[in-house]
Amino acid sequence: MHIVTSAMTVPENVVTNDQLAEIMPTSDEWIRTRTGIRERHIATAESNYSLGLSVSQQLLASANLDATQLDFIIVATMSPDYATPGEANRIQAAIGASSAFAFNINVACSGFVYAMHLADKLLQNGHYGIVIGSEVLSRLVDWQDRSTAVLFGDGSGGVLLKGDEAAAPVVDLLSLGDTDLSLKAGGEDKYFAMNGRAVYQFAIREVPNSIQRVLTQAEMVPDQIDWVLLHQANARIIESVAKKLQLPPERFLQNIADFGNTSAASIPMLLHQAIQAHTIQRGQQLVLSGFGGGLSVGTMLLRY
Amino acid sequence: MHIVTSAMTVPENVVTNDQLAEIMPTSDEWIRTRTGIRERHIATAESNYSLGLSVSQQLLASANLDATQLDFIIVATMSPDYATPGEANRIQAAIGASSAFAFNINVACSGFVYAMHLADKLLQNGHYGIVIGSEVLSRLVDWQDRSTAVLFGDGSGGVLLKGDEAAAPVVDLLSLGDTDLSLKAGGEDKYFAMNGRAVYQFAIREVPNSIQRVLTQAEMVPDQIDWVLLHQANARIIESVAKKLQLPPERFLQNIADFGNTSAASIPMLLHQAIQAHTIQRGQQLVLSGFGGGLSVGTMLLRY
Repeated sequence: MHIVTSAMTVPENVVTNDQLAEIMPTSDEWIRTRTGIRERHIATAESNYSLGLSVSQQLLASANLDATQLDFIIVATMSPDYATPGEANRIQAAIGASSAFAFNINVACSGFVYAMHLADKLLQNGHYGIVIGSEVLSRLVDWQDRSTAVLFGDGSGGVLLKGDEAAAPVVDLLSLGDTDLSLKAGGEDKYFAMNGRAVYQFAIREVPNSIQRVLTQAEMVPDQIDWVLLHQANARIIESVAKKLQLPPERFLQNIADFGNTSAASIPMLLHQAIQAHTIQRGQQLVLSGFGGGLSVGTMLLRY
Repeated sequence: MHIVTSAMTVPENVVTNDQLAEIMPTSDEWIRTRTGIRERHIATAESNYSLGLSVSQQLLASANLDATQLDFIIVATMSPDYATPGEANRIQAAIGASSAFAFNINVACSGFVYAMHLADKLLQNGHYGIVIGSEVLSRLVDWQDRSTAVLFGDGSGGVLLKGDEAAAPVVDLLSLGDTDLSLKAGGEDKYFAMNGRAVYQFAIREVPNSIQRVLTQAEMVPDQIDWVLLHQANARIIESVAKKLQLPPERFLQNIADFGNTSAASIPMLLHQAIQAHTIQRGQQLVLSGFGGGLSVGTMLLRY
């Protein structure tokens, strides 16, 4: 398969670190130095569905494709508007994808990479599918808890994919299920609760391992990767992964400063911005790596 | 792929129609004649995770398989315990499936069939995967609303699958996204809200169409199906689908009387009971058809 085109949408409303510091004991300096985040978009009128719909409409317009040509729509999300119907089904109806099936998947921050792997398995040559990562995490944020409230943001990104005869992307997906619930949200307590240290240690250990397994499978060395697109959880994690792989940090794309952690939406948003900026060019080797809730990790090596 | 073995678990607590009639204006006779339901299991101590874990443990024990041999665990659910971690990830950790990836999908009552299709795409020859449908719908039920409270139940069922060189199961998956939200749950209103008439009309039109498309693809006639396992939403829907396909109603397995509508769990529970009872035998042609929230439909023709 290959990426035909990409798109993203974020809520209009921007919340800066300084604005957060007005409602809770924190500061721009504290947040920036520990996370790399300067601001995030927080939904007001927007829903998970409306964000994902906008992404889908942009994808079709940009490729000049009729929605009836889509075989499927997959939405990766941990913050759906409803238990049912899923965002994927509502988007299918709204764009008129009359031949498509649609489903939501949830693997938290790894969701987009998992959905891309499913898309690759589902796509037949010459056929089209849409994969979206979309989140309204502000719903799951306890605005009384400064340790988590500063981290998350809302947004949506996605790609239009087309099946072809190119070799399948190389993937590494792994669950490292978390019996201590060191990263949880929803349920009776409703809000994010995180053992930040445990999740950080998990990420800087398992993400390089997963990327290394993909490279071994592909018989490549780290230096052959053009761009690494990690889930944007924390700028320090990104730096640490770069160091472990002995790659220059410049190859690790970043937009966490502007959006915070948007879970399943972070990788497709990052991808779209870099494609728009012509940073990512056709033929380049991309590594997409998602990690987080589950705990889970998922890496895909993909030629753009 | 083929089904190696099956399992199910329901909560201990049984709630009869008469018990419901004590807390809301309804009656056993009203519920039975309109839905076919006599009783349902409602979770008290059990969680979605604990039900799915029990199913997974039974699957491994029954096949005498070590969890480390699993490639993946997929849980179809619209009523997860948490936004993250997903049931699939927690089960992976609890059973020690150290080489598996894991994810939840949500296509409501169609979820199990969609997950089976993904499993078929993911399974390599000789490899193993688990697919579970698991629900605690009682969480989404408004016990003040007699029109929906009588319909739903909790439970979990699943299968252990093995990849082989047999022809892939024939499937038909379709989203008929529901812009009117005629079947919704979760969100701000939290509870199930349903336009029963619209959903009923959808089901008796789209389920026979989907089954017919699968048969056409497989170049088979309805009479070549040994058993039809429909999502157990309503006994009247099952009768109507049998009539439309001109098949004897005896070929449509039923357990709705004992469990109510358990969404993604209904088909694997039905499958397990019929396998246990030797009703379903090796070599027989099964049609699994899920339908509901989304709105969505999904049908799989599978040789047991």
